[in-house]
Amino acid sequence: MKILVTGSTGFIGEGVVSELLKEGHEVIATSRNEHTASFHDWFSSVHYKPYTIGSKDISDLYAYFEKPQAVIHCAWDNLHDYRGLHHVEENLMNHYFFLKSIIESGVENVTVLGTCFEYGMKEGCLSETMNVTPSNPYGIGKNTLRVFLEMLQSVHDFSLKWIRLFYNYGKSNNSNSLFAQLDRAIAQHDSVFNMSDGNQLRDYLLFDELVKKIAAISVQDRISGIINCCSGKPVRVIELVEEYIRIKNSPIQLNRGYYNYSPMEPVHFWGDNTKLNTI
Amino acid sequence: MKILVTGSTGFIGEGVVSELLKEGHEVIATSRNEHTASFHDWFSSVHYKPYTIGSKDISDLYAYFEKPQAVIHCAWDNLHDYRGLHHVEENLMNHYFFLKSIIESGVENVTVLGTCFEYGMKEGCLSETMNVTPSNPYGIGKNTLRVFLEMLQSVHDFSLKWIRLFYNYGKSNNSNSLFAQLDRAIAQHDSVFNMSDGNQLRDYLLFDELVKKIAAISVQDRISGIINCCSGKPVRVIELVEEYIRIKNSPIQLNRGYYNYSPMEPVHFWGDNTKLNTI
Repeated sequence: MKILVTGSTGFIGEGVVSELLKEGHEVIATSRNEHTASFHDWFSSVHYKPYTIGSKDISDLYAYFEKPQAVIHCAWDNLHDYRGLHHVEENLMNHYFFLKSIIESGVENVTVLGTCFEYGMKEGCLSETMNVTPSNPYGIGKNTLRVFLEMLQSVHDFSLKWIRLFYNYGKSNNSNSLFAQLDRAIAQHDSVFNMSDGNQLRDYLLFDELVKKIAAISVQDRISGIINCCSGKPVRVIELVEEYIRIKNSPIQLNRGYYNYSPMEPVHFWGDNTKLNTI
Repeated sequence: MKILVTGSTGFIGEGVVSELLKEGHEVIATSRNEHTASFHDWFSSVHYKPYTIGSKDISDLYAYFEKPQAVIHCAWDNLHDYRGLHHVEENLMNHYFFLKSIIESGVENVTVLGTCFEYGMKEGCLSETMNVTPSNPYGIGKNTLRVFLEMLQSVHDFSLKWIRLFYNYGKSNNSNSLFAQLDRAIAQHDSVFNMSDGNQLRDYLLFDELVKKIAAISVQDRISGIINCCSGKPVRVIELVEEYIRIKNSPIQLNRGYYNYSPMEPVHFWGDNTKLNTI
């Protein structure tokens, strides 16, 4: 299948591109900066087309992106700051009009990355049929984009697969996520790693498994709508951290209780992955 | 109190302006077109300031609108078409940035007109604490504006009174609402009035009572958040129509069952007005 992947140089996007190539798909990759993209392993294996979402310099995006059969929309700006108003004030409409333009020109298979932050401060097992009350601008921006795309389905015929991501581990990156920080601490041979008490329950997928699932969701047509992309199993954060340190064979010591829990996240929550498992 | 009223030449707005003047408030009235505004009875009694929401030609709106203590935001475009995408594609962000600018400059008392369409296709008694699932672009646009303004409350200190309007009668207008059509039919001495079977349950307020309530909500500071502005009493549409014809002393005959129920509205719904009644 010929698949357009946006945000192809982002943390999730680059993994999705690699996975699709591995599965033999034809990939059109896009991102803002071609120079940055050129350093990625996949660069010579895709059709790369630079594009800044929100710019209006290309009228026929469908032709520009070589008439893809499907899109996996991984792009989203400023993910380092969940509380910034740009998520609703800029990203939302930029991404809405971008996807609308792609859809209007005829792409009928649309997969977009959402987030478990759309659920808001809800504890326990979160299922796709729940009412959501996102409480930070990132969650509000993503959830509103979903509502707008569902609204578009009343005037355009397309399949929308809205993937709610939970947590993942197993891929290094320079974010401030727990495992990214732990990776850096291990790499730097820090003796101590400061963390919360680690008793939160969370839902983690291995990164490689996560991108496999995103690819699988995109290419199938049995299920659509909101799809939790998660393990379905609550894991105590401390257990995952200890296992990770064991695998990495690191002598690092944990300083538990150094940080409080984030006020932006429920303490115990995980996803219901019944729907995902039907694929 | 010095109160800015937007949409002052609109159906609700002009009634709100008149009511505020009657109560002795100082009114700054705004709308797009000063010429249109000049035909209104209230024109010589207010400070009128023309403004097109969405334009960016005035940087200090607070000063331009003479530093009001409160705003009642009645403006909203294209109310004749609930299904038009402009509600989310244009109105939403135009109105958000307009209100944000007013709020940032220091107005702490903000009242905005919402709609019962925010609830979506829900039957029965609708209360402010319910989860909402608006199903047309008008309801989605308004509800999203509310969510965005609530989000702004985490960075700016202001009181938000979000008024959900239900139905009203008793004021002529040229819209396609049931009572506007009935008014025209009576005025034209039509012999027959085509309508649905009229068995829907709805929540109607007399127009004069409605604008009194909007004014009362704006000037008080006991309650805020979402406020249903309604009678709290379900009324069978046919009963209200028959009563209205009796009051108008019209010989017009009703052709019931000519129209089907609107697929965009639940058949039976009314508002819980417990909160409103605490004022």
